[in-house]
Amino acid sequence: MRPAPSQFAPTPVSQPTGLIDHWCLTRISRALWGSPIRVVLWNGLSATLGETPPVATVSVKDRATLLRLLVRPALEFGEAYAADRLRVDGDLVEMLAGVNQALAGRPYQHPWTHSLRATTADSRENVHVHYDLGNDFYALWLDESMTYTCAYFEREDATLEAAQRAKLDYVCRKLCLRPGETVIEAGCGWGALARHMARHYGVTVRAFNISQAQLAYARERTAREGLSDRVTFVDADYREIDGRSDVFVSVGMLEHVGHDHYPHLGDVMNRVLDPEHGRGLVHFIGRNAPMEFNPWIAKHIFPGAYAPALSEVLPGLFEAHHFSVVDVENLRRHYATTLRHWLTRFESHAEEIRDRFDEQFIRTWRLYLASAQACFTSGDLQLFQIVFDRAADDRMPLTRDFLYEGEGHGRV
Amino acid sequence: MRPAPSQFAPTPVSQPTGLIDHWCLTRISRALWGSPIRVVLWNGLSATLGETPPVATVSVKDRATLLRLLVRPALEFGEAYAADRLRVDGDLVEMLAGVNQALAGRPYQHPWTHSLRATTADSRENVHVHYDLGNDFYALWLDESMTYTCAYFEREDATLEAAQRAKLDYVCRKLCLRPGETVIEAGCGWGALARHMARHYGVTVRAFNISQAQLAYARERTAREGLSDRVTFVDADYREIDGRSDVFVSVGMLEHVGHDHYPHLGDVMNRVLDPEHGRGLVHFIGRNAPMEFNPWIAKHIFPGAYAPALSEVLPGLFEAHHFSVVDVENLRRHYATTLRHWLTRFESHAEEIRDRFDEQFIRTWRLYLASAQACFTSGDLQLFQIVFDRAADDRMPLTRDFLYEGEGHGRV
Repeated sequence: MRPAPSQFAPTPVSQPTGLIDHWCLTRISRALWGSPIRVVLWNGLSATLGETPPVATVSVKDRATLLRLLVRPALEFGEAYAADRLRVDGDLVEMLAGVNQALAGRPYQHPWTHSLRATTADSRENVHVHYDLGNDFYALWLDESMTYTCAYFEREDATLEAAQRAKLDYVCRKLCLRPGETVIEAGCGWGALARHMARHYGVTVRAFNISQAQLAYARERTAREGLSDRVTFVDADYREIDGRSDVFVSVGMLEHVGHDHYPHLGDVMNRVLDPEHGRGLVHFIGRNAPMEFNPWIAKHIFPGAYAPALSEVLPGLFEAHHFSVVDVENLRRHYATTLRHWLTRFESHAEEIRDRFDEQFIRTWRLYLASAQACFTSGDLQLFQIVFDRAADDRMPLTRDFLYEGEGHGRV
Repeated sequence: MRPAPSQFAPTPVSQPTGLIDHWCLTRISRALWGSPIRVVLWNGLSATLGETPPVATVSVKDRATLLRLLVRPALEFGEAYAADRLRVDGDLVEMLAGVNQALAGRPYQHPWTHSLRATTADSRENVHVHYDLGNDFYALWLDESMTYTCAYFEREDATLEAAQRAKLDYVCRKLCLRPGETVIEAGCGWGALARHMARHYGVTVRAFNISQAQLAYARERTAREGLSDRVTFVDADYREIDGRSDVFVSVGMLEHVGHDHYPHLGDVMNRVLDPEHGRGLVHFIGRNAPMEFNPWIAKHIFPGAYAPALSEVLPGLFEAHHFSVVDVENLRRHYATTLRHWLTRFESHAEEIRDRFDEQFIRTWRLYLASAQACFTSGDLQLFQIVFDRAADDRMPLTRDFLYEGEGHGRV
């Protein structure tokens, strides 16, 4: 839906600079038409961008910010918000989801103007920037298990703790883990899944990570919980994974692999998995279609990250090695709820976080968590869990009802 | 695994023609090495193709057949078998699955040396050849509901009747049908799913088909069962589907659409589905990777057919319109069991079928059903059910456990 020229009429102005501001505001109004926003400039000029009542007012504090919003909107919105040159009064998540919905279906550029390559050194730096911010910081707003990926809400009103436990167990059940089997985990975070698999399913895990802060925490907690004989943490990139295993699992790492490297990850999966009964699960943030990753998130939150469409992932990871895709589940709405919990907890610790970092950090992370929640709410981001096995393997159950026999089914 | 030159030693011969036969048999043995077969030629020359005991003996009756097997193996195997120039003594399905497994992982040609285009006239002719062979013929070996697609075996030992009923109901539950909704079905066969949806889920169905024999049967039976007010059968190609609906479903039609036309089918789905809550299910025979369709099946059983990999299907059908892929399930083993039932019933009616057609028809269809069963057993063919909805639609249940609450859940 595009506006008729008369549909928005910013406050009339007479000064020459006012004409520039008026033109900029008109352009922005056209680009975002249908969004539930009122935009107000430093000089009082304003426009409402849709016919429904706005859920938020966006205040732009200076002309430089306004001009940059026209030239590189996604990047500048985040940078201006973080620097407090742009304010949002109203519900940030609802506003961002509303913008997503207003823009849904508009033409988009295919993202491959440049490729996404990352050497192992690039990957280490990219991971360091985000995951080594401090275990104490993440402990303020993650659940007790320190799981920093989409939870699984068996009921919408489950606690975050219960939903993360349910997710860990759901992944184990999808993998049909059997006591005594060996598991390789690529990108293990603080080790919650590795410990859950070893403790409840009797498997031996080698878990790979390149975040030094996460590895230190994972090793210490795993030793404290008496699981070090069954879980080994390895400081290595996914490309450096060696050995053989019955099961391969990766939860929330593919986003950091980079599009050009999917075949390398597929080669690793094929190399390490048992040729007869090897199987695995890959859990990642994806898209309904190939699309550019948000440039502000890519610059300030997750350098080198990309959220792929299924058609971008399948050839390199699975088809190249004739793996059978057994089950794909889209848990988008579970991630929206997970992020709602994280954002609430984050806000409740804003004072401590501001003391440790600064106001710009708070605003950057608030926008990151809110925009992610908005994208999962509006359907701009998806969360895919893909289960795969060897083509001729008949060991998975014939139907999926075993997944729904209640938490703990299949545990040792 | 390739043989060392000394590993197979066909019976020694001295005549000059015998040398040609010996060379051909050596070439075939190399190509199929590892297959559980013994090959015997008309002149007594023989070779065993693997180190495990053969499950079948393949007898080649003349030199012309032997030479053609070298030049165009997949096509000639079927044509020679059908014409009784080649015999198989032993378990046909087990032998074919064994050959598939021996060839697994060998290099293959990407199929797109030529494109798969079909005008609506081509499609009508392709469908006529297979589906208009006679309703009485199909009634001899399909289940009572006349469902000619993969069944769903809640237990491996379920009857075919129970498994087809369970499949129809499973599809309805995956679609979350609500009373009063409208459904468009593309490629409806003899109408079993359309009747099941209308009878048990209170929806109104427009079901499209271009097989005249199937349409006649579907209309007559639907009227007899008092469902004509809720199910309309339309003699039209999928490209000609008009109107609007809440739900789109297509079970076993995509195989006939042809790779080049997936975007056209996606356009139809997007055009007919409600823009807010439209959703659907596509059920089709697929592959773990792009691969040429068996040329004998394409020539003698399903002209114009193709079994796509997921990466070939997703862009045109779903990503082009930003549909969310909600759920993908691979029911490969259910189709192996379905085909075992069909083949058993087919054999039990071989006399009647031979009387109606001829011995060549019997041998052609036996090989078609056996090779399909073998391919689903060995993992060379897959059966995918894909559920999709609009990107921002939150009406599907949060988890999939509603699918496993027993047959009849959600019925009116």
